[in-house]
Amino acid sequence: MNILLIGSSGRLGSAVHTALADRGHKVLTAGRTSGDFRVDLTEPASVAALYESIGAVDAVASAAGTVPYKTIQEMTADDYAAAYDGKVRSQVELVRQGIHRIAPTGSFTLITGILARTHIATGTAASLANGAVEAFVRAAAVEIAPQRVNAISPTVFTEALDAYGDYFPGFPAVDLADVAQAYVRSIEGVQTGQIFALD
Amino acid sequence: MNILLIGSSGRLGSAVHTALADRGHKVLTAGRTSGDFRVDLTEPASVAALYESIGAVDAVASAAGTVPYKTIQEMTADDYAAAYDGKVRSQVELVRQGIHRIAPTGSFTLITGILARTHIATGTAASLANGAVEAFVRAAAVEIAPQRVNAISPTVFTEALDAYGDYFPGFPAVDLADVAQAYVRSIEGVQTGQIFALD
Repeated sequence: MNILLIGSSGRLGSAVHTALADRGHKVLTAGRTSGDFRVDLTEPASVAALYESIGAVDAVASAAGTVPYKTIQEMTADDYAAAYDGKVRSQVELVRQGIHRIAPTGSFTLITGILARTHIATGTAASLANGAVEAFVRAAAVEIAPQRVNAISPTVFTEALDAYGDYFPGFPAVDLADVAQAYVRSIEGVQTGQIFALD
Repeated sequence: MNILLIGSSGRLGSAVHTALADRGHKVLTAGRTSGDFRVDLTEPASVAALYESIGAVDAVASAAGTVPYKTIQEMTADDYAAAYDGKVRSQVELVRQGIHRIAPTGSFTLITGILARTHIATGTAASLANGAVEAFVRAAAVEIAPQRVNAISPTVFTEALDAYGDYFPGFPAVDLADVAQAYVRSIEGVQTGQIFALD
């Protein structure tokens, strides 16, 4: 398949890129500052320009989303807005604009995370964003069929434990290679409206 | 208790008002265009002014939230942003600013809805907003204890079937009086981080 991968320069995106290439797919990469194409997902016009540039693809995979981590006492209204813009608006826009542009039976695979269902101090914005995207995925799936949309919702990455492990004390970690396989499963499989939880 | 009720002029807010008054609580009402106090929940400064005006309260109950209903093909990026502003940002702001202002063991009760977990055509923005608020509620609960926060998540109201029944074919409906009792349960009980689902 021809697959558009957003956020390929990141730790997760790089692993997904490898897994998709290993399966023989042609991967087109896009990101804010790197990749084959440049895109600012928070700008609808930039998403439109990206879809115009890449031509026909069979699947869109997102490995990009940023949210602030602070205690609720430290959060501002703008912090929650940044979580919405950085992880919700961005990925919703990929789907909303993509349904008219990708293959009639194509798929979208978005990224959420364990904080949709498990909670840590400093995680309210992440939980909000992940909960929004996961509910959107389930809702959008029923409207866009036969196109499909799923979310990958991993716990902390094994490879990120040195940086983030203290935020997830005692949480099982997941290897990036296993998370990348969940993208393969979403893209090559037939399921839709699913949250692939890797706890 | 002294309870701040947002959206008391609406169908749901009116029922909640009655239920809380019946339990002997003193209810202060606030809304965009009616109530004891005026507030625009999408403006942080307006929320701050509201909390300054009302003085000490023991609980905050929200019965207000608006989202657009359109097919995903008809939705715009601004429609999803309107859902965020109208139901997520607004209610998050009530909590974020309220934790420093309500009683040390006070509570927040927010409104979501069945589209967090069940889906209809035209419901992607509602699902997104409800999913965001419900995940926020679970996450915020662990950070604000001993203060509490819950969400009331009802199916279509019996009293609204004439207007909205066609959007919810075959869905069981719930009487507003029963939804109002879920607010009483959230406010007078001890649970936190709960989604009170009325299906």
